[in-house]
Amino acid sequence: MSLNLAVIGGDGTGPEVVAQALRVLDQVAKDGGFEVQTTPLPYGGERYLETGTVLTDDEVEGLKAYDAILLGAVGHADVPPGVLEKGILLKLRFELDQYINLRPVKLYPGIETPLAGKGPDEIDMVVVRENTEDLYCGNGGVARRGTAQEISTQEMIATRFGVERCLRYAFELARSRKAQGFPGRLTLVHKTNVLTFCGGTWFRAFEAIGEADYADIEREYHHVDACCMYLATKPEIYDTVVVPNMFGDIITDLGAAIAGGMGIAASGNLNPDPSNPNPSMFEPVHGSSPDIAGQNKANPLACIDSLAMLLRETGRTQGKPALEAAGERVGAAVLAVTPKFTGKKLDRSGYGTSEIGDMVLEALGA
Amino acid sequence: MSLNLAVIGGDGTGPEVVAQALRVLDQVAKDGGFEVQTTPLPYGGERYLETGTVLTDDEVEGLKAYDAILLGAVGHADVPPGVLEKGILLKLRFELDQYINLRPVKLYPGIETPLAGKGPDEIDMVVVRENTEDLYCGNGGVARRGTAQEISTQEMIATRFGVERCLRYAFELARSRKAQGFPGRLTLVHKTNVLTFCGGTWFRAFEAIGEADYADIEREYHHVDACCMYLATKPEIYDTVVVPNMFGDIITDLGAAIAGGMGIAASGNLNPDPSNPNPSMFEPVHGSSPDIAGQNKANPLACIDSLAMLLRETGRTQGKPALEAAGERVGAAVLAVTPKFTGKKLDRSGYGTSEIGDMVLEALGA
Ligand SMILES: CC(C)[C@H](C(=O)O)[C@@H](O)C(=O)O
Ligand SMILES: CC(C)[C@H](C(=O)O)[C@@H](O)C(=O)O
Repeated sequence: MSLNLAVIGGDGTGPEVVAQALRVLDQVAKDGGFEVQTTPLPYGGERYLETGTVLTDDEVEGLKAYDAILLGAVGHADVPPGVLEKGILLKLRFELDQYINLRPVKLYPGIETPLAGKGPDEIDMVVVRENTEDLYCGNGGVARRGTAQEISTQEMIATRFGVERCLRYAFELARSRKAQGFPGRLTLVHKTNVLTFCGGTWFRAFEAIGEADYADIEREYHHVDACCMYLATKPEIYDTVVVPNMFGDIITDLGAAIAGGMGIAASGNLNPDPSNPNPSMFEPVHGSSPDIAGQNKANPLACIDSLAMLLRETGRTQGKPALEAAGERVGAAVLAVTPKFTGKKLDRSGYGTSEIGDMVLEALGA
Repeated sequence: MSLNLAVIGGDGTGPEVVAQALRVLDQVAKDGGFEVQTTPLPYGGERYLETGTVLTDDEVEGLKAYDAILLGAVGHADVPPGVLEKGILLKLRFELDQYINLRPVKLYPGIETPLAGKGPDEIDMVVVRENTEDLYCGNGGVARRGTAQEISTQEMIATRFGVERCLRYAFELARSRKAQGFPGRLTLVHKTNVLTFCGGTWFRAFEAIGEADYADIEREYHHVDACCMYLATKPEIYDTVVVPNMFGDIITDLGAAIAGGMGIAASGNLNPDPSNPNPSMFEPVHGSSPDIAGQNKANPLACIDSLAMLLRETGRTQGKPALEAAGERVGAAVLAVTPKFTGKKLDRSGYGTSEIGDMVLEALGA
């Protein structure tokens, strides 16, 4: 059994946090008796500034050979906004058809939340963000640029195909969480009272699929504005949440904030279809934090937890139980480490990047 | 001096909270020596269900004769989503060209915030939401509806004209707040790294106008996802915020949540251009709460504070100092009342709707 992993450290603190995740990976591979082959790839802002290349179609093709991709962070202060985000991150999500962006919002024991009176019992949901449609398609343009008559547009797109596969994934997830003791509730978040066209496509599919195939799952609908309010006031109402791409971006950042901040938020860009050969890509939700890059200050827990997700998901999709088991172990080690952050800020804990890596290794019994 | 006011109570708790605001208005008009003429208008869900009429073009024309509009809430459980919202609220915002949606996010003394360790000093900003463009234009459609090939779109639109007038309003507001002791910082919120077309129009206008005409105002830019995170973790970084329509909807609901909830959030749909004869419209941010309608449970403070804004803004725009002074008095009375909510939930305080109206009247010395 083996794992053939593409590693994109990316910009800023990306390579540092990835380095810690790879230490952890080495250990669990050794313990679990599986081979790991890692290929570091130089895609990111530095290469773009040196060579002018963002990410070529051939490079995207090349990534298809891997079992999975681990990404640190993309974003460079000297590169105009959108170039790397659209050219690397979104290009990979779209071209590898990673149609699920899976983002748990879970407050770990010991981690401080900004919400008064809320604890791990109240903040424990998972957000399924559609990852290949919506305002993220990039359709639109600018006319009469630079004049008083300038007009620009961006198009939000929803297809039954794209919406349905995302909804089905979310319903299945809600069902599997129900089996673990969660309420079995799926909340759709949209803005159907204004975005009547795209909102209609989502809402009708949600009702039809839910009624036909998931009668055991409670369906709820929230407008995105109300959802943000509830995340700040009563996050305990959420179990599994399904949401289009743009609103998903927003509510998962807010979700990360209430779950203690970016230092711990993991995510997976999944292609969960077993018939699809493209790899999934896993990344911390946080950005490249150029201000603290190279200072051994970044918290690698989000990246290490993303590795846990990578191992679990890749193991499950590819039928490799040793990977799945290793993923569970890494997840448990992260959970074991978080109480050490009690009374500290997650991002300014005083612990160094490699020191936190050490803690996770220690929790693994290494 | 007089005020000719159109009153749309609307649905659910709307008429109840408006009734309290009108009691307050009567009082300050009597005290301030100005005439008030109020015309109740039956627009809303009930009328739609009875007659099939949402809001006719003639009725919109008719509204242009008033000095201002006070709106309770629009939204009815038996009416499909979008019908009343687009047919009344958005139709009025757009056709009366109320291009500024002004939403203070201010934690009043005594009001509970969900954020640990934050108080009135940390939560005191004002959001300027563009109100006549963006995803709210309604452009888009659905093709192959009800089939597996269904596709729907919604268009986000930004024009230099619409963006510039909104930005100039926001820069002026930041400047006038600076004169009152605020930092003099204007934060633009968008998603320029993905929405490069509309985001570009906003960002370039922001930089150009700020550099040319508002060098005294500090400019900051935040992505909308980061903004939601900061609103939950460090709201004190915000002074004046300017934001397109859809993202403005989202961040102001979150803003209302951190400022103690919908019970207190006021808003104005402004047409601040003195050369424009159309009235502005003022409304609480909260919805129609059909579950508690008719039970004397709704908190009228948001509506009364919207009345304060109505009086201030109408007085200023129309050069009627008596109205402005009355608006200041109503605002001060709301501020005087909020400490009575110490230790209580704003929305389930145990105080009745009319009782809270009494408190405000009492604070006015009536
Ligand atoms: C960097 C950016 C393009 C990206 C997104 O908007 O999806 C990020 O915010 C995220 O949430 O992964
Ligand atoms: C009711 C709805 C159309 C409206 C909006 O989205 O603008 C509301 O949420 C608001 O914020 O005033």
